[in-house]
Amino acid sequence: MNKLQVIKIGGRVIEDESSMNKFIREIANLSDPCILVHGGGSMTTELALKLKIPQQLVEGRRVTDADTLKIAVMVYAGWINKQLVAGLQAMGTDAIGLSGADMNCISSTLRKKEGVDYGFAGDLNEKSVNGERFKSLLEIGFTPVVCSITHDGKGQLLNTNADTLASAIASEMSRFCEVQLNYCFEKQGVMRDMTDKGSVIPQLTKSEYSHLKNSGCIHSGMIPKLDNAFLALEKGVEKVIIAEAGAIENIIQNKPHHGTELSI
Amino acid sequence: MNKLQVIKIGGRVIEDESSMNKFIREIANLSDPCILVHGGGSMTTELALKLKIPQQLVEGRRVTDADTLKIAVMVYAGWINKQLVAGLQAMGTDAIGLSGADMNCISSTLRKKEGVDYGFAGDLNEKSVNGERFKSLLEIGFTPVVCSITHDGKGQLLNTNADTLASAIASEMSRFCEVQLNYCFEKQGVMRDMTDKGSVIPQLTKSEYSHLKNSGCIHSGMIPKLDNAFLALEKGVEKVIIAEAGAIENIIQNKPHHGTELSI
Repeated sequence: MNKLQVIKIGGRVIEDESSMNKFIREIANLSDPCILVHGGGSMTTELALKLKIPQQLVEGRRVTDADTLKIAVMVYAGWINKQLVAGLQAMGTDAIGLSGADMNCISSTLRKKEGVDYGFAGDLNEKSVNGERFKSLLEIGFTPVVCSITHDGKGQLLNTNADTLASAIASEMSRFCEVQLNYCFEKQGVMRDMTDKGSVIPQLTKSEYSHLKNSGCIHSGMIPKLDNAFLALEKGVEKVIIAEAGAIENIIQNKPHHGTELSI
Repeated sequence: MNKLQVIKIGGRVIEDESSMNKFIREIANLSDPCILVHGGGSMTTELALKLKIPQQLVEGRRVTDADTLKIAVMVYAGWINKQLVAGLQAMGTDAIGLSGADMNCISSTLRKKEGVDYGFAGDLNEKSVNGERFKSLLEIGFTPVVCSITHDGKGQLLNTNADTLASAIASEMSRFCEVQLNYCFEKQGVMRDMTDKGSVIPQLTKSEYSHLKNSGCIHSGMIPKLDNAFLALEKGVEKVIIAEAGAIENIIQNKPHHGTELSI
């Protein structure tokens, strides 16, 4: 294995059947080995609403109480993961769906209650990702599809941020080979102005990012995503791209695309 | 691998936290390699009720419409599967949760609409179970935990009867080694009189079964379970036991237990 693609697929892409099917076809066409990482987007919120389980967000982060954890596990590890796996299998890609508990591939620790109690939220550390397990699966031709549910090794499932998880997997795998980390979502890339599609930044350095963050151009959900993305570069990942899901084939084949490439 | 235990865990055992934890501890203590198979019991029905999705049963079999399939996948492949896997990992058993789509380990075909339309129900055939895949996982020390969700190989997930699935897995695996199939549920075994705990039949032959079925002693849900169980014996499975989940350790260690052993 010379090169590995770690691909995080974002919420809205998963929710829309036609964009998910297009994405699956493009993934199936890739020649590099890859690891897919996904969360569940708004499906969890919708299901919680239908079940009348109140949802609490603190600074954009979901508080995972016991009922919400159950929903997250059902949606991420159940419906979305198995839909992706069955879709990839239909295209001839030998996918295997994994939560962190499966093969003990990703462990985490319950987030400390410092001021805010995030409930069953699992934080990753340096030893969380079992890189050898992923390496073995990839070497025998499997495509791991990883949902953002981890476990503490003591029987407790935990909800983990999917962007952070993708960054941690990419960083760990860079011990074994060249890794490209791709955040694929519904927008074209990192934009100077969220309302202007033409404002995508093709190349973003860490110092420019700091500048744009301080000036308020980059805000809310993009901040943790970019923090995770830059962290991966610092930890040895070769290339990080943030782009529209539909552009994944071009990106991986080094063809022109409209996304954002990061550099330290 | 000389001997393999295929263990089907029944609905009520899964639903009750303390009985599930006890079961997990007993599984973790087994010395033989094993494959666990599970469905989801009444959790699916309860969730459907909460979501106001009407459930239809025809001759004791669930009709799986699109909404019900989604619930079944969430409950079986999501919540129950990952709870079992995390629980086993906590006990030092290297479990891996699988739906039929994962590693393409179990494929099925949409049930033909002959009179009754069972919706997204998947029937198994001679080629459904990918025995080589299970063999490889077992040989490197993994414990597969298989939920009763399969796929048609064309991207469609399908709901499959867990008793039938356990029988098909056991039969296929008997090509490679000696297999014991254990149906573990909340009752003590096959009973002559459902209301009398003392009426468990220790040994049941196929002809006695026919007799008890014709006389009405054995009825409803026990019939497909026993049909599947006898089919496994006919297809090369060495031993089939139907017993209480709590007895699994004794059964596998050939110690006295109160279950029913079948013979052709």
